[in-house]
Amino acid sequence: MILEVAILDVKPCREQEFETAFSAAQKIIAGMGGYVSHQLSRCLEKPSRYILLVNWQTLEDHTIGFRGSEEYQEWRKLLHHFYEPFPEVSHYTSVFDNKTG
Amino acid sequence: MILEVAILDVKPCREQEFETAFSAAQKIIAGMGGYVSHQLSRCLEKPSRYILLVNWQTLEDHTIGFRGSEEYQEWRKLLHHFYEPFPEVSHYTSVFDNKTG
Repeated sequence: MILEVAILDVKPCREQEFETAFSAAQKIIAGMGGYVSHQLSRCLEKPSRYILLVNWQTLEDHTIGFRGSEEYQEWRKLLHHFYEPFPEVSHYTSVFDNKTG
Repeated sequence: MILEVAILDVKPCREQEFETAFSAAQKIIAGMGGYVSHQLSRCLEKPSRYILLVNWQTLEDHTIGFRGSEEYQEWRKLLHHFYEPFPEVSHYTSVFDNKTG
């Protein structure tokens, strides 16, 4: 499993609008092949910052399957105009995972 | 619940040693009050980079309970010398969470 990590800096005063748009957009990724789960969280120290974590079965499910899809164009249209600067997206593979505590 | 996020840049060629140290150190956080779960993952694009995600019941469980504890001194001793630069740690609160897909 691959963890996609994106730190999202949203333009000032657009946070509520972004959250509403994300609420719709998340249905897009949740329907893609290889999608496992996702979470969007908001930073306490910098409230215009969010972190998006998406689990994919493989790297290519994200980089080829999703980014090459028509659905990605819809995702872009809904979300990309909120970001300043445009986010860097990285992928991680699990070393230790203690989900149950 | 609060998500602690730390992007950890490990000194070149120290990755295996860091993972071994982390394997021991993670028992420290897992025993702290307010600890819920954690994961350590390694970046595909930059293999000396890791992301540590820790879920805590409250912000203070991390910032006061853990960082003010004797156990934190042990954690520091095991891990902090691996980092270059020293990581910034942020805290996030959940907006959307679709763990089950």
